[in-house]
Amino acid sequence: MNSKYKVLKFSSKKLENIEDLISIEEPLEISIKFKENDNWITQNLSITMRTPGNDEDLVRGFLFNEQIVQNVGEIDSIKSFGDKVGQYNIQNKILATLNNAQNVNISKIKRNFLTNSSCGVCGKSSLDALEIIKKNKPDPSKPQITQDIIIQSPDILRKKQSEFSKTGGIHASGLFSSDGDLIELREDVGRHNALDKLIGSTLKNNQLNAKTQFITCSGRLNFELVQKVLMTDIGIMIGVGAPTSLAIDLANKFDITLIGFVKSDSFNIYTNSKKVIVN
Amino acid sequence: MNSKYKVLKFSSKKLENIEDLISIEEPLEISIKFKENDNWITQNLSITMRTPGNDEDLVRGFLFNEQIVQNVGEIDSIKSFGDKVGQYNIQNKILATLNNAQNVNISKIKRNFLTNSSCGVCGKSSLDALEIIKKNKPDPSKPQITQDIIIQSPDILRKKQSEFSKTGGIHASGLFSSDGDLIELREDVGRHNALDKLIGSTLKNNQLNAKTQFITCSGRLNFELVQKVLMTDIGIMIGVGAPTSLAIDLANKFDITLIGFVKSDSFNIYTNSKKVIVN
Repeated sequence: MNSKYKVLKFSSKKLENIEDLISIEEPLEISIKFKENDNWITQNLSITMRTPGNDEDLVRGFLFNEQIVQNVGEIDSIKSFGDKVGQYNIQNKILATLNNAQNVNISKIKRNFLTNSSCGVCGKSSLDALEIIKKNKPDPSKPQITQDIIIQSPDILRKKQSEFSKTGGIHASGLFSSDGDLIELREDVGRHNALDKLIGSTLKNNQLNAKTQFITCSGRLNFELVQKVLMTDIGIMIGVGAPTSLAIDLANKFDITLIGFVKSDSFNIYTNSKKVIVN
Repeated sequence: MNSKYKVLKFSSKKLENIEDLISIEEPLEISIKFKENDNWITQNLSITMRTPGNDEDLVRGFLFNEQIVQNVGEIDSIKSFGDKVGQYNIQNKILATLNNAQNVNISKIKRNFLTNSSCGVCGKSSLDALEIIKKNKPDPSKPQITQDIIIQSPDILRKKQSEFSKTGGIHASGLFSSDGDLIELREDVGRHNALDKLIGSTLKNNQLNAKTQFITCSGRLNFELVQKVLMTDIGIMIGVGAPTSLAIDLANKFDITLIGFVKSDSFNIYTNSKKVIVN
């Protein structure tokens, strides 16, 4: 989603009035409704600044990636509500009702919230804390992909990004088959939102198959992004930019193959090179 | 702060074992201690994933930019605590004690928390909500800067970034005089953290002078970054990448000059061009 804005462009040593397409950023307040001891409880979880569109996918992916639900079947409904506000006349509140309510409790939500709120993650190693949530590892050897597929995937992502070509200012995450075919793509001004939307959408449509797929993201790779991919059991993550230390440490701990700095003829493999075929 | 990691580099059609410097990312749990009705209260505020170093500046800037304190003099002390954890043996908890305690209360903290937690900002226009916090506007006409200074500032930032040159994976924010001199610079894997560190440091050292200075950031410009700059009363903000819609709307509302897509011979002025001199 984007909108036209007036811009004064300095170029060729002079100013010129133009119109430019800008990616929309609006807050989204995410709440859940669930049963505890026969009482319905509504709990605010997070505000995220997102590009409106695919909001249901965003919430679905967010609830799964934060492990507030174990599978998306636990989500009964996702509904936008509240007044339509702002110049784009958008509802900025969304509520997910969880039918499998006995599995949800507030202390669990608080413990699982790794990125936005207090969770005790700082009191021990962040990675040890994650092990409490994620018991199994992705397959350490599947899928395998070639150097050509690694190098091509960011290009494919960029070419298919409808919003990036218009605004130059939006992140993308793409799910690829190990043959290099793009299965699904989502965009957002927030990197983590693009990935939540991608995972939410592909979970809903039963498109995820961890042993034959990988995920490529625009931009840099941080802990939060690798953590979200880990939850899907997908074992290869590619980014255009640099990884952080904690992204590498996390990938290493769970045997995820982490690849960064992908350029037209080079890339860096930070962890588990067994899944990369160079020929 | 960075660390050496083993990397398998694919280049010139072959794999090679190298060592590469990676920017460190570690969680930081920020808490405050303040008096309410003669009782000392300790309240967790936020966990942020940051690059260790200048943590006190980060907390100082964060508390000011979120308007939990009106000025940094309200902060009595900032101390790291807790076990040293992780492979870098770092304390990941930090506590700010606020002496001017009568001005702090939890409901105010909750209301003011624009970026990470529930605050009611989605129930109305996000910009209207900000007006409650920020009563005055930055000077609408000062300072003025030339096209050359705009174009040079990201280059100066990049050249002085000690960490970026090593890792290629870290954001920076710089405070500049209107003559184009770099006054102070901070780096972090998180864009918002780099800006919090910059503002926290320059507030502490009395280096801020809104009518003669501007701020340049690496990367894209979103609502959160412009909001932080707004709190300092600095009226010009420059970014290397694209702005979001809400960044433009916010800058427009408060007469901040917002400039993006800065390249070697061009840039875009999104709002208030009165502060830009083209000659």
